[in-house]
Amino acid sequence: MLSGTPFTLADLRAAYDAGATAADVVREVYRRIEAVNDPGIFIHLPAEAEVIAAAEALGPRDGRPLWGIPFVVKDNIDVADMPTTSACPAVERVADADAFVVARLKAAGAIVVGKTNLDQFATGLVGVRSPYPVPKNAVDPAIVPGGSSSGSAVAVGHGIVPFSLGTDTAGSGRVPAALNNIVGLKPSLGALSATGMMPACRTVDTISIFALTVADAHEVFRLAAAYDPADAWSRPVAAPPPSAPPKPRVAIPDAASIEFFGDTVQAENFATTVAALEQSGAVITEIDLTPFFQVAEMLYYGAFVAERHTVIEPLLASRPDAVHPVTREVVEKALGFTATDAFRDIYRLAELRRVVEPVVANVDLILVPTIPTFYSVADLEADPIGPNSRLGTYTNFVNLLDMCGLAVPTLPRGDGRPGSVTLLAPHGRDGLLAGVARTIEQFGSRTLGATGAPVPPPVPLAEQAVDGEIELAVCG
Amino acid sequence: MLSGTPFTLADLRAAYDAGATAADVVREVYRRIEAVNDPGIFIHLPAEAEVIAAAEALGPRDGRPLWGIPFVVKDNIDVADMPTTSACPAVERVADADAFVVARLKAAGAIVVGKTNLDQFATGLVGVRSPYPVPKNAVDPAIVPGGSSSGSAVAVGHGIVPFSLGTDTAGSGRVPAALNNIVGLKPSLGALSATGMMPACRTVDTISIFALTVADAHEVFRLAAAYDPADAWSRPVAAPPPSAPPKPRVAIPDAASIEFFGDTVQAENFATTVAALEQSGAVITEIDLTPFFQVAEMLYYGAFVAERHTVIEPLLASRPDAVHPVTREVVEKALGFTATDAFRDIYRLAELRRVVEPVVANVDLILVPTIPTFYSVADLEADPIGPNSRLGTYTNFVNLLDMCGLAVPTLPRGDGRPGSVTLLAPHGRDGLLAGVARTIEQFGSRTLGATGAPVPPPVPLAEQAVDGEIELAVCG
Repeated sequence: MLSGTPFTLADLRAAYDAGATAADVVREVYRRIEAVNDPGIFIHLPAEAEVIAAAEALGPRDGRPLWGIPFVVKDNIDVADMPTTSACPAVERVADADAFVVARLKAAGAIVVGKTNLDQFATGLVGVRSPYPVPKNAVDPAIVPGGSSSGSAVAVGHGIVPFSLGTDTAGSGRVPAALNNIVGLKPSLGALSATGMMPACRTVDTISIFALTVADAHEVFRLAAAYDPADAWSRPVAAPPPSAPPKPRVAIPDAASIEFFGDTVQAENFATTVAALEQSGAVITEIDLTPFFQVAEMLYYGAFVAERHTVIEPLLASRPDAVHPVTREVVEKALGFTATDAFRDIYRLAELRRVVEPVVANVDLILVPTIPTFYSVADLEADPIGPNSRLGTYTNFVNLLDMCGLAVPTLPRGDGRPGSVTLLAPHGRDGLLAGVARTIEQFGSRTLGATGAPVPPPVPLAEQAVDGEIELAVCG
Repeated sequence: MLSGTPFTLADLRAAYDAGATAADVVREVYRRIEAVNDPGIFIHLPAEAEVIAAAEALGPRDGRPLWGIPFVVKDNIDVADMPTTSACPAVERVADADAFVVARLKAAGAIVVGKTNLDQFATGLVGVRSPYPVPKNAVDPAIVPGGSSSGSAVAVGHGIVPFSLGTDTAGSGRVPAALNNIVGLKPSLGALSATGMMPACRTVDTISIFALTVADAHEVFRLAAAYDPADAWSRPVAAPPPSAPPKPRVAIPDAASIEFFGDTVQAENFATTVAALEQSGAVITEIDLTPFFQVAEMLYYGAFVAERHTVIEPLLASRPDAVHPVTREVVEKALGFTATDAFRDIYRLAELRRVVEPVVANVDLILVPTIPTFYSVADLEADPIGPNSRLGTYTNFVNLLDMCGLAVPTLPRGDGRPGSVTLLAPHGRDGLLAGVARTIEQFGSRTLGATGAPVPPPVPLAEQAVDGEIELAVCG
């Protein structure tokens, strides 16, 4: 029965309604893992019996919102009693506690299946910078899986689990979503606690969520979000249900600043999506993305790369060969920057934020392509850095500007490759992004990830204020 | 008539009511400058006729709140057509525009008299780190004048002008207030625009205000405060009138963490002030200041000193002798810090903020001595750095913790030296600090600065919400 079920939350709940057990679902997860047969997805996958035992330990189905829902976790996030590696075997250690977010999801009834592969130390957007076997893109194995949250995206793209945790600093929670035809929710910074997550750039990191549908990603986000006083970067963030104005004001990059690196099919797909969104009621305006790109450059080519260096400096000093050569090349750029350079870059970022603020203030959100074009595994073998940088064109600036983002599949491209756009807005507007993305994911005739299952019809928006739930705007 | 008038705003307005002209007031300012006869106060003092001309250019008295009120400006803040030096002749240039705050005060009718001396590049708390003659402490010339805003504090201490602008990063707007028996208002960061101010540590700098009374300092603050989109560190901050709860919850340092470096007279003065405040209705509790001191250490002994280096790096490289030797010694510590160190310190500060937050959340404000003890000019000649550091005991942590502060004179010490305490609270509570400080400035039998004039009785608090004025809490 379960083998034909697409793994959305609604479908799994229907299966439970129809009598499936949590152990049945875990068995189906392992059957799919075996069917996909990609040794690159997991860095740590427990024996099936262990996860079945965890499922059975849930007890009978109760009212918990994620009861019996399996998920996978990027291997730079701790799950108690499982090893964490950040894709660097030299730093492997068994976690003695769940990350804050993992603990919340487990408390809601969800079941961790395993730990997934990534670009080492979450540095990269390609998914090939790992000493473990590289996960294969779920849609087209010639294409890079995307990173750094490669395994988590591919697992959801295949429908092995309905959602997964990634992390996102430069776009690691969005680029792989575009490449695997799934949703990538990059929350407002501070909404999901970083306790138990190995940092990349602590000031702009966040845990992110992959799912097959916007509704699922946003529901998991709402359950995971909570203020955590133990995480110095945690912030009180409202996590309301999806909601959108009937005529959202949407800014898109103008013709002078939009960039597809010659990929006319991608350009056409974006234009078609914009036209469909306008048709649905959105009011479209154009903005110059140049200052956003100036921000983006600061993440790897300025002193901010020293944030990554803080994480692995002792390892680089004592065991340089333990670090992936490309990762080393990227992170060692930090050695060229002084503290004075760091503060100069912090000032420049503050000034660029001021340039961007009035642009953003005029609209509800910004719509960009998630990626400008596609790159193959062979492209990355030829040039491990250039294509990686270009994949971050529309993602690198987002966290530095303290915006939330939601990568959502749109109608497929003319050549059949997945289409994806990203919605961006200032900190705290996660509910708005989900509200508008619900419309976009219905565009065209599309399937979920690489599953072949059709996109379910939109669930009616829940009442905006549920009984006993007060919408609270918290400023910090 | 004017020669016997203490220069409070109320007294000056009364003089205007009685027929004095703005030119009369300027003449009296110059008479006082001559009588004080301290060549260290001003770096630039225009000819009297020029300032009289500016006074006459105001036209007849109108409703502007600071019409005809003279003030002086620390020489790291631009006044159009006057030179700015930051006490370093090598960087002198004539400003082509007023700093944002100066422009606001001028627009309110105030008259700039001149530019005042400072610890070079606003680095220091003593006032002796200047290539210009050192200003003499207004109360006792054997004692350091305090810095870095030395000239601005001494000018107000002598009653030459009713208020002055300083700046405050480590305590430069508070320590000199304590040493000269005046009020030093260090606003919430971002309330007073830094446009036209030469920075020290851009992330934690603010312009500050000296005055003879709390009411005057707070009134000037309210007129100067406004959001400035051109300053990347400007923030929308509410600047309400003074107001205090009848029983403010006040935290003081506990016995284990309070520090007077052996100055028992200062300890006694603080205890007496606390007792008087409790008598007035305040509820006193004790807190451990240790984490605050850990923050304080980061300002000069960690990578944050590189913020100062960003300002003078080219000068240090090309003309090291143009920098005061002590300033150079302090700022060149930046050369020892990498970008990686800078981010590590930023993380540590964020973590310490989390330690402090719950402590601060339990009270309305924190009360500390402004300075732990006094140092003489001779002490600083013997050791130019140690006493300076100790003077910052209760000030260095404040801006790093994003708190507002108000240094207010209290009853004199047993030995006749001025008493001073500082009220501290989280960002945005400037009105609360002024409300409580109004009570403290009435303690004992005290005179204003070094003027010999008695403290005026408290002005009744204005209505909390004046007609047409809405109290607005703005979050940023």
